[in-house]
Amino acid sequence: MNGNNVYMKYMTWREFEEKKSHGVILPVGSVEQHSHHLPLIIDSLIAEEISVKLAEKIDAVVAPTLTYGYKSKPLSGGGPLFPGTIDLSGQTVISLAADILEELCRDGVKLIFVNNAHFENEAFLLEAIDIVSRKYPETVILESNWWDVLSQDIIDRVFEDVPFPGWALEHAAITETSLMLYLAPQLVREDKIPSETGFEPLPYHKYPIVKGMVPESGALASAKGSSAEKGKIITDAAVAEFVKIIEKYTK
Amino acid sequence: MNGNNVYMKYMTWREFEEKKSHGVILPVGSVEQHSHHLPLIIDSLIAEEISVKLAEKIDAVVAPTLTYGYKSKPLSGGGPLFPGTIDLSGQTVISLAADILEELCRDGVKLIFVNNAHFENEAFLLEAIDIVSRKYPETVILESNWWDVLSQDIIDRVFEDVPFPGWALEHAAITETSLMLYLAPQLVREDKIPSETGFEPLPYHKYPIVKGMVPESGALASAKGSSAEKGKIITDAAVAEFVKIIEKYTK
Amino acid sequence: MNGNNVYMKYMTWREFEEKKSHGVILPVGSVEQHSHHLPLIIDSLIAEEISVKLAEKIDAVVAPTLTYGYKSKPLSGGGPLFPGTIDLSGQTVISLAADILEELCRDGVKLIFVNNAHFENEAFLLEAIDIVSRKYPETVILESNWWDVLSQDIIDRVFEDVPFPGWALEHAAITETSLMLYLAPQLVREDKIPSETGFEPLPYHKYPIVKGMVPESGALASAKGSSAEKGKIITDAAVAEFVKIIEKYTK
Amino acid sequence: MNGNNVYMKYMTWREFEEKKSHGVILPVGSVEQHSHHLPLIIDSLIAEEISVKLAEKIDAVVAPTLTYGYKSKPLSGGGPLFPGTIDLSGQTVISLAADILEELCRDGVKLIFVNNAHFENEAFLLEAIDIVSRKYPETVILESNWWDVLSQDIIDRVFEDVPFPGWALEHAAITETSLMLYLAPQLVREDKIPSETGFEPLPYHKYPIVKGMVPESGALASAKGSSAEKGKIITDAAVAEFVKIIEKYTK
Amino acid sequence: MNGNNVYMKYMTWREFEEKKSHGVILPVGSVEQHSHHLPLIIDSLIAEEISVKLAEKIDAVVAPTLTYGYKSKPLSGGGPLFPGTIDLSGQTVISLAADILEELCRDGVKLIFVNNAHFENEAFLLEAIDIVSRKYPETVILESNWWDVLSQDIIDRVFEDVPFPGWALEHAAITETSLMLYLAPQLVREDKIPSETGFEPLPYHKYPIVKGMVPESGALASAKGSSAEKGKIITDAAVAEFVKIIEKYTK
Amino acid sequence: MNGNNVYMKYMTWREFEEKKSHGVILPVGSVEQHSHHLPLIIDSLIAEEISVKLAEKIDAVVAPTLTYGYKSKPLSGGGPLFPGTIDLSGQTVISLAADILEELCRDGVKLIFVNNAHFENEAFLLEAIDIVSRKYPETVILESNWWDVLSQDIIDRVFEDVPFPGWALEHAAITETSLMLYLAPQLVREDKIPSETGFEPLPYHKYPIVKGMVPESGALASAKGSSAEKGKIITDAAVAEFVKIIEKYTK
Repeated sequence: MNGNNVYMKYMTWREFEEKKSHGVILPVGSVEQHSHHLPLIIDSLIAEEISVKLAEKIDAVVAPTLTYGYKSKPLSGGGPLFPGTIDLSGQTVISLAADILEELCRDGVKLIFVNNAHFENEAFLLEAIDIVSRKYPETVILESNWWDVLSQDIIDRVFEDVPFPGWALEHAAITETSLMLYLAPQLVREDKIPSETGFEPLPYHKYPIVKGMVPESGALASAKGSSAEKGKIITDAAVAEFVKIIEKYTK
Repeated sequence: MNGNNVYMKYMTWREFEEKKSHGVILPVGSVEQHSHHLPLIIDSLIAEEISVKLAEKIDAVVAPTLTYGYKSKPLSGGGPLFPGTIDLSGQTVISLAADILEELCRDGVKLIFVNNAHFENEAFLLEAIDIVSRKYPETVILESNWWDVLSQDIIDRVFEDVPFPGWALEHAAITETSLMLYLAPQLVREDKIPSETGFEPLPYHKYPIVKGMVPESGALASAKGSSAEKGKIITDAAVAEFVKIIEKYTK
Repeated sequence: MNGNNVYMKYMTWREFEEKKSHGVILPVGSVEQHSHHLPLIIDSLIAEEISVKLAEKIDAVVAPTLTYGYKSKPLSGGGPLFPGTIDLSGQTVISLAADILEELCRDGVKLIFVNNAHFENEAFLLEAIDIVSRKYPETVILESNWWDVLSQDIIDRVFEDVPFPGWALEHAAITETSLMLYLAPQLVREDKIPSETGFEPLPYHKYPIVKGMVPESGALASAKGSSAEKGKIITDAAVAEFVKIIEKYTK
Repeated sequence: MNGNNVYMKYMTWREFEEKKSHGVILPVGSVEQHSHHLPLIIDSLIAEEISVKLAEKIDAVVAPTLTYGYKSKPLSGGGPLFPGTIDLSGQTVISLAADILEELCRDGVKLIFVNNAHFENEAFLLEAIDIVSRKYPETVILESNWWDVLSQDIIDRVFEDVPFPGWALEHAAITETSLMLYLAPQLVREDKIPSETGFEPLPYHKYPIVKGMVPESGALASAKGSSAEKGKIITDAAVAEFVKIIEKYTK
Repeated sequence: MNGNNVYMKYMTWREFEEKKSHGVILPVGSVEQHSHHLPLIIDSLIAEEISVKLAEKIDAVVAPTLTYGYKSKPLSGGGPLFPGTIDLSGQTVISLAADILEELCRDGVKLIFVNNAHFENEAFLLEAIDIVSRKYPETVILESNWWDVLSQDIIDRVFEDVPFPGWALEHAAITETSLMLYLAPQLVREDKIPSETGFEPLPYHKYPIVKGMVPESGALASAKGSSAEKGKIITDAAVAEFVKIIEKYTK
Repeated sequence: MNGNNVYMKYMTWREFEEKKSHGVILPVGSVEQHSHHLPLIIDSLIAEEISVKLAEKIDAVVAPTLTYGYKSKPLSGGGPLFPGTIDLSGQTVISLAADILEELCRDGVKLIFVNNAHFENEAFLLEAIDIVSRKYPETVILESNWWDVLSQDIIDRVFEDVPFPGWALEHAAITETSLMLYLAPQLVREDKIPSETGFEPLPYHKYPIVKGMVPESGALASAKGSSAEKGKIITDAAVAEFVKIIEKYTK
């Protein structure tokens, strides 16, 4: 067996039983198009890899990742019309997350950290958490993501040489591509990074969703200027912030 | 009968039939605590009043407001523990909005604008819109809110004399209070506006929700510096932007 | 602020907290065609206006009205095919009412009176009440409507000069029109009251619902002979009976 | 095999295939207390027996009876607190009836008559019918019950020697007991018929439901004065009216 | 009244109250094609008849049979395309069974035996039981069926003169036909028993379900060689095993 | 990027678009205790590994594995009381699988093979498939598992030196352990394989589920006698059979 001992999936039930009091991290992602240079799985992969680094810091357990996520929206993920984007409905995300959280609570876990890396998931994850938390108030359940915990200082360092287009356009762009270059470089097709799209975020949502609402490549802004170093900066900062958040409720 | 002829609720069925081709605006709000100086209904009232001004500009119909909304969260609305905050679950908001939108589509309405004034509603409204839109793709359904359409210039004008605390803290604060001073001044208890709270937004969600997570008054930032003039600036800007958005799909 | 102090929607959270022990009235209506002389909203408006008068008598709180209601049926409301009739499905009405009632119970309200003015709502409201009441048995929840509490004597007075067609046909007819002439006369188009329809109630339901099952105007019986005086008789009688019902459970 | 050839349950699939074009009758009842002299099943039994007589007249098929029904209410059935009353929730009744109706439509049945004998079922059955009918508009679905089709003349004949307490109190009283004396006399314990209860119907619903809201026996009015002859009068009248209703849509 | 005193449906509420401590048996079946020689109802009939024999042995109560069951599958029941097969969806079976089991638990029943005679029901019945059992752990709920309790010795006796095709093909074949010849011989059309089909079970499921996936008659194997004696052997063995199972939890 | 090109998760949207016409395999597993020698994830891991081998044979795509599955039952998986067993409810499995299958159909995939390795999932997966298949009948959806396709000859080879306890006891026993020794030997703790349990399968289900219903280790039969060779025999046989099944619908 490999030396890594934070993956719940590789534990026997007794190993999990012995370690569950340290807290459980639940990574949540998506199966969603990320332009021509990144694979469909990156939200889930980033959530899982950051969770593993976090778990190693605080000796916690990483539950199996929720790989599929809520519907991709054009303005934040390109939308459902790209082949390979596999969307769950809102009610399914709520039920799925609630069932898993409830089972962890029933197993006696006292701290759960939901680490979400797909923006569209959040409202539905929080609904699931709220439903479960009313039944199991003795378990602290925290939810966050790698972008909301970044300080302005970190953002400035990541975007010191290129302009920051705003989080609204950071889909398959510099932050996600840098994270992948750091966490799983073999999955990045650097030669296929699209150039600037000129895409502007819209302050409204329009339905029905039709082709052509976002750039053809699926990227909302260019990932040019991404690097593994930037990915490491983001990862380290997010993990450090997550540790601080969790320690508030365990110390 | 009063001279205002945009309220669907005051129309007979035949009056609605004659006017429905002009488009329908659906205001959505909440019943949620807004500190000591604002009543529970303000999200719904702001949504409705702005919708009426918008309808008058484009000769559209304002459907009866969805008064109750999704669960108030501590970091954006103070949360469920304040008496008088009446929360709907996620699935209820989805079903409620979907039923109404579907009925409007079945009535042959070709453009619907969902005007939301309660941040927490948005993901669930969009889920409802997506579900209905797949069945009735011939109807254009738009969703927006008064804050996302404000340009930086407008924000600068509203906050020219006081610092902008960020949208995260704008609950029962300057923008909402100014809107109420403009749209329904008789409902504002100006003498009860709380002073600065010192509250800082947190980059994560924590459950179970318990008392003390937000300032005792229910305000996340002080509304001192609010004025009817600022409310008018916001209202006029939002209405003008909404007109532009709708015209893209009707001209 | 206006002098009326029973509307929950115009209260701050603290004002509601102080008054909630007096009981809460929840008006429920519909958005449904009511022929050529009455607007779509009348069920909701009648429910709310009677609730306000009731609340003033017993110093209670009126919660925001549930404006949208269950599906209009041909034999009691003309059915779904009239433009402007906006129907909720049964499950949505159950969820919507249950969420609101549960929130009121969680806020510590000990008496709730559900005042329904749309016949078709009743079974679904009672299902919601039953579900909530099993969880919160310490709150008394009452449900009634203005027509079931009228004594034969009151009915005789209202119909002293015209024949009573039976409750089955009283849609957009004398009782509802009289109530509107008393409660909101500016919304009644008296010149558009249809003549006798000759419509007969059927002792069965037939699906699919198609055009032509009810008179073209949407009225099931003529409203000729309606008056504000009759509206006042009904209102006063209903309020007096509601007071008696509530006092049984609070004295 | 017995000579009766209307029961779908006793047909092979090919026999059903050959006869389904004649229309299908779906009896719906309940498992609900009916005082000391009648068994729990009588609503279902009455629905089925009348359906069989109706089917024999028009050569139709009787589908297996929906034995369990919606929640018994105190004011119409004594309520859920009597042992042996087995209640389905509203959503279950809707789903159950909708699944069966949809299957009959998919089998190509063109006329379905839902014969309900438990008052509380009706709103949920109609919701199911409405949902299915929108998908299968080519099938006519009718719903009625034995009491709504009785003319005043029939009611007068049944109550010529005893006063009619109103339908609200006709639970385990003269009409149901007479029907059972005609349709299944071996199941009536005539010696256990309770005397007058003095119970008065209330014009409102009160929750939580507690013991003592209805007479201890479970009967809302006395069944004294019941007879098989009265049961035959009701049965014959109901069947005759049902035939007329169905013929409107098949001739 | 007949001498049989195990049927809950023929009891008054008080008779049920007196007997419910002996345990309740809930038969569950289906409305499903069973070839040309057996009627649609046989699963429900077999479940009910065996339940009655079991109840007589242990003085228990037989609740009204759940007549309709989960979707027939081609490989175990011929599938949904045969006219007369009336399928419930999975969620409906779960809700229906859960509502009834919960009501029995609320009535204070301490032992429930769910006797299922339609293979496809099982997973959904167990889901219902699990949901209810978590709320009412003081009630023992058992689930079984007549085929799983048969010993190899019994199977050998039933198939001493014909080969056993395996349970996968025992639909409308020797075991079910023999049971019907013993329990309700008047419903068996012996002259219509199909000859050998040559049908082979497949180790996978294929959708969409289309005509021709199973033999035209609807039988998966021939029922030739069936007899009332074999039906009695199976019935007696199943009842004896059920008694032993129940006694483990009541002695 | 690694050389393996069957994983959908590692594809970009365009790579998936190009390959989707070859068919998609959806592995489904569970997070469930598997005694002291196997980790929680093995059902999902076996499903995924066999799917990859299958995909390589037929040049198909392997969708991201459904890692969490339906409730573990005592008689087939040890049940919910072992820490680390994380169960989804039936409705969640149905919704989750249906959403994913529907998205694949909407992407134009014409053949989907659902490869399930957790017995308890099957009925709920088939319900999801049935729901989706009625909407998208042009897509062939197949469902199977590695054990149902094994011929008697293969079973004889696997159990040539130890007795076959029957599939009912093959949980964490010889077949699963051998598969893991072949597919992921580093995850098997061979020194912790329990000895014979003496556990006998029961022909009924009993609720509530309590501790002690299965052996303390969580294994239902001993895995002694497992080997990588046996795992390879099973894997090769299953893959070969799956290829044959799929070819029936694609050639």
